[in-house]
Amino acid sequence: MGYSSKIIEEVVEALSALPSIGKKSAMRLAIHLASDSFDKKEKLISSMTRMINDLKLCSECHGFSDTAICSICSNPARDQHTLCVVESIRDLIAIEDTGSYRGLYHVLGGIISPLEGIGPEHLEIDSLVTRLDTLQTRELVMALSPTIDGETTIFYISRLLEAKDVTISTIARGVSFGGDLEYADEFTLGRSIKARLPYQQKQLS
Amino acid sequence: MGYSSKIIEEVVEALSALPSIGKKSAMRLAIHLASDSFDKKEKLISSMTRMINDLKLCSECHGFSDTAICSICSNPARDQHTLCVVESIRDLIAIEDTGSYRGLYHVLGGIISPLEGIGPEHLEIDSLVTRLDTLQTRELVMALSPTIDGETTIFYISRLLEAKDVTISTIARGVSFGGDLEYADEFTLGRSIKARLPYQQKQLS
Repeated sequence: MGYSSKIIEEVVEALSALPSIGKKSAMRLAIHLASDSFDKKEKLISSMTRMINDLKLCSECHGFSDTAICSICSNPARDQHTLCVVESIRDLIAIEDTGSYRGLYHVLGGIISPLEGIGPEHLEIDSLVTRLDTLQTRELVMALSPTIDGETTIFYISRLLEAKDVTISTIARGVSFGGDLEYADEFTLGRSIKARLPYQQKQLS
Repeated sequence: MGYSSKIIEEVVEALSALPSIGKKSAMRLAIHLASDSFDKKEKLISSMTRMINDLKLCSECHGFSDTAICSICSNPARDQHTLCVVESIRDLIAIEDTGSYRGLYHVLGGIISPLEGIGPEHLEIDSLVTRLDTLQTRELVMALSPTIDGETTIFYISRLLEAKDVTISTIARGVSFGGDLEYADEFTLGRSIKARLPYQQKQLS
């Protein structure tokens, strides 16, 4: 970079540490920020500072929260007896954005991964068991990635809960809606065929 | 967005005001920032705060600068008699990144655009004339976009400097290097043919 401003370079460096922002985008963003109206910059900085200082993890589901208990856990309109287990807050938000789920969540904070040295003791599994009892959960929806680690985690949790009166389900896996069979990966397509379901009209709604 | 955190929403809103960052990317960035190690967030905020407080415009070329006069204008190794006129600091950086130019710059802060009500009086044209005299500029390289407004600005400035002993050049326009003629737009290709040059081996170096 021929143009040298230590001040801008530092912003570029900090921005390019973010996911999906390379050096070029970071430079474009930094220059935009530098040229931008003062208000917007102030707003970005003040909102980010507030996030650092005030954002909490919900003591119930371990998702992000402005308060001690998040807006989902404290909402009496949500189905208190269905609990959806997710790996991360990102997955929680992705599911919440679909608008297809009205129960509660439980963020594990990862999945069991022997290769990465992540065992059950590193995850929010103890608190999950406690919550199941407290909430008298009837259904536990395992919304984990369909990977080996995901399957391992589901298996581990299902074994742990064998004695409890709770139905364990997993989110449906298969070819994507709107996707082209031709482009589906072999593994997904193979599992989709093996896990074929009887045709029901209500599936379409 | 089902998941509601005012704190995160504010960050998302501020981030999605940036160019090429939509709501989804902003959300992903915000969540990453919220989950990130404290150091990185601090660094981003402190560098941005420093940019707001300390970044200046160079009193000579009107580019960004950490000091009153920027690193390019104060560098005696640069060719003091060649001045490259650009529309914006972004263009300055783009040219500087090529490493093909060793003279000085002058940022106009826009181009003449009758449709958008931008006249010569809104641009750094008076200061350009003053600098030409002070620097005893021999060549003025007009590196403006090859648009109607760009051409208008070049024409205006060239008329203004008619009486002065300065060579005015424009950056070469034509089909992109490495580009496929087939995909060049008609206008560029047409102008490239009209503005054809005698073949010189040194052009290739």
